[in-house]
Amino acid sequence: MLEDKNKGEVNELGELGEFGLIKHLTQNIKLVNKSTIKGVGDDAAVLNYKDKQTVVTTDLLVEGIHFDMLYTPLKHLGYKAVTVNISDVYAMNATPKQLTVSLAVSNKMSVEALEDLYEGILLACEVYGVDLVGGDTTSSTSGLVISITALGEAEEKDLVYRDGAKENDLICVSGDLGGAFMGLQLLEREKQIFNENPKVQPDFSGYDYLLERQLKPEPRKDVVDMFKEIGIKPTAMLDVSDGLSSDLIHICMQSEVGCTIYEDKIPLDHSTVTAAEEMKLDPTVCALNGGEDYELLFTISLDDYNKIKDQQRVAVIGHVTADKGSYQFISKGEQVHELTAQGWNSILNKD
Amino acid sequence: MLEDKNKGEVNELGELGEFGLIKHLTQNIKLVNKSTIKGVGDDAAVLNYKDKQTVVTTDLLVEGIHFDMLYTPLKHLGYKAVTVNISDVYAMNATPKQLTVSLAVSNKMSVEALEDLYEGILLACEVYGVDLVGGDTTSSTSGLVISITALGEAEEKDLVYRDGAKENDLICVSGDLGGAFMGLQLLEREKQIFNENPKVQPDFSGYDYLLERQLKPEPRKDVVDMFKEIGIKPTAMLDVSDGLSSDLIHICMQSEVGCTIYEDKIPLDHSTVTAAEEMKLDPTVCALNGGEDYELLFTISLDDYNKIKDQQRVAVIGHVTADKGSYQFISKGEQVHELTAQGWNSILNKD
Repeated sequence: MLEDKNKGEVNELGELGEFGLIKHLTQNIKLVNKSTIKGVGDDAAVLNYKDKQTVVTTDLLVEGIHFDMLYTPLKHLGYKAVTVNISDVYAMNATPKQLTVSLAVSNKMSVEALEDLYEGILLACEVYGVDLVGGDTTSSTSGLVISITALGEAEEKDLVYRDGAKENDLICVSGDLGGAFMGLQLLEREKQIFNENPKVQPDFSGYDYLLERQLKPEPRKDVVDMFKEIGIKPTAMLDVSDGLSSDLIHICMQSEVGCTIYEDKIPLDHSTVTAAEEMKLDPTVCALNGGEDYELLFTISLDDYNKIKDQQRVAVIGHVTADKGSYQFISKGEQVHELTAQGWNSILNKD
Repeated sequence: MLEDKNKGEVNELGELGEFGLIKHLTQNIKLVNKSTIKGVGDDAAVLNYKDKQTVVTTDLLVEGIHFDMLYTPLKHLGYKAVTVNISDVYAMNATPKQLTVSLAVSNKMSVEALEDLYEGILLACEVYGVDLVGGDTTSSTSGLVISITALGEAEEKDLVYRDGAKENDLICVSGDLGGAFMGLQLLEREKQIFNENPKVQPDFSGYDYLLERQLKPEPRKDVVDMFKEIGIKPTAMLDVSDGLSSDLIHICMQSEVGCTIYEDKIPLDHSTVTAAEEMKLDPTVCALNGGEDYELLFTISLDDYNKIKDQQRVAVIGHVTADKGSYQFISKGEQVHELTAQGWNSILNKD
């Protein structure tokens, strides 16, 4: 991204100062969207969505809470910071168009490290056609903090909220679940081994997919595009960030309905199953409570079943019931359990 | 703001959890703007500016860098976090309409403390007619971090950028300068006295105005309203956050012009002068380099002089020249100096 990266001219944040740093990091931004009237460089960015509606969402990523610098490459971190944010825009059935990036950075961080972070941010912008239009860069007394706000547009009639699920709607999810959580467990395991004996090289063979799910998640633009192609508008939708259980309960509570989902329908990648078994975890529990998969969880009218049934990227995992407050999980042994919003702490405490 | 504040039901962040905390803090939000279609509670907020353009700006405030918890009341901090952000929207000659607030919070912070912070945030929203429509709340490994993104609207023809200043334009500034910086010096002085002897009560008598300039700055909505009333559109504008010198140079660089300003025209409050003299600082230098005044610095066509000359809230301090890169400061003794973008560190190092 930054052409003078290897010239060794600057490597200390103090030498550049705030204005110099921002200029250095943003000099190669290319704006691609017609709706971006003015990007970086004034008091505010200016956008023009004309007759469309504006969608806005924000996320804060904190070192030591959301990411561990020991095993997170900065380019991946920048990429992920953008993709998890625009995933929320897709979850509205909208198209991301612009974002602002604010960073609180320790003086100990080198300009090269920040360039790597920005390289990941701008790569994600390029892949998803989003313009970086503003932000703020400041010092931090401790770790790195990344705050991103994403803006997007949609026709009013296309927007999908969380509160539209109706009785008999089908519950669907894209891709597979639990992989991001298993990727994190692998990274944490190797970190522990490394801390005990720094000479041991990490062994991630066969688990590339899981590491990618954790370190470089992709938002499901393709699924949103598919909705348009096959002529479906979900009745409710969100992206799976907290875990299937917790996120499905969000939809049900806001839609004032109940649900029934089936264990044998939950999509799992074979490497998620293998890694879970190796670590003596139940892969289904990882899928239910792991979170961070950034897959789309949505409900569709039963009438749309024929349109979606042959779509490889989507699984139908259950249906919406009129039984408000009742969230049923039917196990492979056909036992009925109550789904609860536990989050990932519960998985590890159980074992 | 929060009705159950005094019931003592909850006072530990851990008891509430993230979802509970967000619900607790956002339950009393009232939306006032027609352009707010959907606020807190979905993947993203939805806005509709119709045929107007969207203005977006973001700021990150970090404990220990931008504020000192020792002398910053949390309600003021919340208020200031909002007002400094929407000040950027006014500086575009636009109207702020919505904002998102993201917080990284130490577990040591009480729910009551967060309620105070939110009380200030929501008070500023109420005063300036802005809707809080989203955000993110997360843990912090160290201090408090506040990230705010403000959105606003303007007719395309009304927007004022930084790059429109022309030769012979008048340079104007609202209110008075240097007060926020002097307020900070007073707070720092009392902090030092307190650290040396905690029994000594702070003495701020006569300096209420300066403390308010630092702790509770108000954006100049009234000046933007005035532009409409008297029929002026500035040719360039920004809000004074870095200091008059630095910010005027921003305008000149982006407009590719020079400037001449006069020391005897720079508006100073009498308490700024008194406090500066007491602390052996030059009040003019404080005004030039202090920053954080959040006054509007703007240029207008010479033809508009008659419209602005009797406006009490605005001072004409100089004019724009064709001499690109030349930034002249004429002292009271009529000596010519070169303005430089030094920022506030330079003031204290000089003395």
